[in-house]
Amino acid sequence: MAKASMIEVKVWGLALDEKNKVPVVILQEAQGKRRLPIWIGTNEASAIAMEMDEKRFQRPLTHDLMAMILRGLKAVVTRVEVFDLRENTFYARILVERGAEILTVDARPSDSIALALRMRSPIYVASHLFSEDMEASLPEKAPQTEEEKAEELRRWLEDLNPKDFGKFQP
Amino acid sequence: MAKASMIEVKVWGLALDEKNKVPVVILQEAQGKRRLPIWIGTNEASAIAMEMDEKRFQRPLTHDLMAMILRGLKAVVTRVEVFDLRENTFYARILVERGAEILTVDARPSDSIALALRMRSPIYVASHLFSEDMEASLPEKAPQTEEEKAEELRRWLEDLNPKDFGKFQP
Repeated sequence: MAKASMIEVKVWGLALDEKNKVPVVILQEAQGKRRLPIWIGTNEASAIAMEMDEKRFQRPLTHDLMAMILRGLKAVVTRVEVFDLRENTFYARILVERGAEILTVDARPSDSIALALRMRSPIYVASHLFSEDMEASLPEKAPQTEEEKAEELRRWLEDLNPKDFGKFQP
Repeated sequence: MAKASMIEVKVWGLALDEKNKVPVVILQEAQGKRRLPIWIGTNEASAIAMEMDEKRFQRPLTHDLMAMILRGLKAVVTRVEVFDLRENTFYARILVERGAEILTVDARPSDSIALALRMRSPIYVASHLFSEDMEASLPEKAPQTEEEKAEELRRWLEDLNPKDFGKFQP
């Protein structure tokens, strides 16, 4: 199989899927408008939110600890990749380098993203995981305020069919 | 300050502090009867419980991922230590070795224990953290059934004053 084309994304935001009461992390193309929602666990959503808000607890939380150990071992997370979707579950992997050693570890997208944010590592998504519909559902005008952004997100999530995008089963 | 005397412990069990609805991990001396309860977060309690029950999810959870990365980097967790209690909060550290490198990372006791179980690493507690009262409160006769064990634990926790032992503030 040819290596899937990978597209760099940024974490656009987090939301709560009100219907299922499940947190969703939303990735958006770094150089485009397509977005990908990934249903994740509550803990991992907190870990992502805290890093996005640059909140720091007095003591390291689990993903902070992982980042501290990696740095202590002089290891670098060169990138994380969300590379597949099978049976409604997204699959990701973390690429770690230490000197000449290269390590690839399978991980949940949520852990991968939480770690990438802490290690300042780029996040990639296989292009086939984006759907054209997702772009179509985006509004023409960018939201101006936090309220508009929340409202846009709410409407966008309502339009999505979770079955189409994969839902993390905790 | 002289290096505190360290005592090896095992994870005796997990319980729910019914009054405060907070999970508690209970450590017991490997070669003795004294126990130490540490109030922890829900996620970390799950991570400890899963490893104790040897439950395996299809995909690695956060502490599994940390263990996989450490193994991939050929690093060893030589031990974890719960070494201090200040303002009702326990402090722990994780000792990692990789070849000639030695790394000490501050961590919460919960993360330290969850990782130690996965890396088959010994857990130590500074001897001054045990209180004589805790031994006194243990019943003479060891519980025979799971129900008796749960009942004993419940009574024991009731007798404890959380302020005396430190409570993790999530």
